[in-house]
Amino acid sequence: MGGGRSKRMPRAVREQQMLDAAVRTFARRGYRAASMDDIAELAGVSKPLVYLYLNSKEELFTACIRREAKALVAAVRAAVERDVPADRQLWSGLRGLFTYTAEHPDGWAVLHSQARSQGEPFVREVAAMRAELVSFVEQLIGEASKEADCDPEFADREVAGLAYALVGAAESMADWAGSPGGPTAKEAAATLMNFAWAGLGNLLRDQKWQPSA
Amino acid sequence: MGGGRSKRMPRAVREQQMLDAAVRTFARRGYRAASMDDIAELAGVSKPLVYLYLNSKEELFTACIRREAKALVAAVRAAVERDVPADRQLWSGLRGLFTYTAEHPDGWAVLHSQARSQGEPFVREVAAMRAELVSFVEQLIGEASKEADCDPEFADREVAGLAYALVGAAESMADWAGSPGGPTAKEAAATLMNFAWAGLGNLLRDQKWQPSA
Repeated sequence: MGGGRSKRMPRAVREQQMLDAAVRTFARRGYRAASMDDIAELAGVSKPLVYLYLNSKEELFTACIRREAKALVAAVRAAVERDVPADRQLWSGLRGLFTYTAEHPDGWAVLHSQARSQGEPFVREVAAMRAELVSFVEQLIGEASKEADCDPEFADREVAGLAYALVGAAESMADWAGSPGGPTAKEAAATLMNFAWAGLGNLLRDQKWQPSA
Repeated sequence: MGGGRSKRMPRAVREQQMLDAAVRTFARRGYRAASMDDIAELAGVSKPLVYLYLNSKEELFTACIRREAKALVAAVRAAVERDVPADRQLWSGLRGLFTYTAEHPDGWAVLHSQARSQGEPFVREVAAMRAELVSFVEQLIGEASKEADCDPEFADREVAGLAYALVGAAESMADWAGSPGGPTAKEAAATLMNFAWAGLGNLLRDQKWQPSA
């Protein structure tokens, strides 16, 4: 039964194939230029089936952003080594992030370039991922600050600020790492780790930079 | 001659008034909801005059982005103290940036939220500003690395990476500083300076963070 296999394929599996094809097409052609025909062809299904499953190009794109954002956050969370000193945790998380974005350039392009450049409502989806990363990093820095026994007040405002700074720096670095001639994932992680940790490390030891005058 | 004054107003002055009104309207109502009627009324001119000067809502918005981007970059450049140690230069630049974004929330909203959320071609305009800031920061870090007499190789790849990280961190912090309950300009600058300098300072003294295993 030749065609039987594809007919009996569960909806969830087929939907993932469509999303795979859509992510690749949106990343390479851009949201506007990508057509539902291209996506259906690449997924090996009929166009009506794509519409049946995902409703519209806008909903399909939203589904791509959500899937890619969830996968990226999960990859970072999974990469973070637990029960190790805070610098190792951060280092493992950064390596996880840059390795993931290097291995999934299409997913990163959808999140970082395509979603942003297509405006609302897609930008909101990316902002939700960003908020999740910031709060994850806040948690890591908060734990590190407890580990370092530093001033409990540090844990509030300062930690939030550092988390924003670090996530912004990481996004900007990932963008650079993905550009022609950019660094490898490991180089990007090492540069940011050096930048971030030597700074954070000093802060956690209460060695603040002060203006000299 | 009551009406004479406004009739004799030079085109350049009137155009700036229209742009002032447009920046405020785009920032507060959003690009899509803002109407040319609102903008003309706030600028105290007729709608046909706005069209005569700025052609279309899209061109008016582009002109706003360009003006605000130029002003922001100029404010940062002007704020940087010269002929002082590199940490003072960076500190003065960061304070300049956060003071500017705090004092010009409408301009910052146009650049950071509105332009991004409306997609192409506006995103490209913001990317140009970003590239200018990155290259300005690269230059600052490059000078600092010469001052610190560090490995000339440092000056290439590492400096570019750090500039990307720092600009990304600063954008993210400015966004946080502008949100309800966010820090003051000085707090934001101090947090980022501590984060960045203590890190950069160590790097420039060749004290790299190394994974312990």
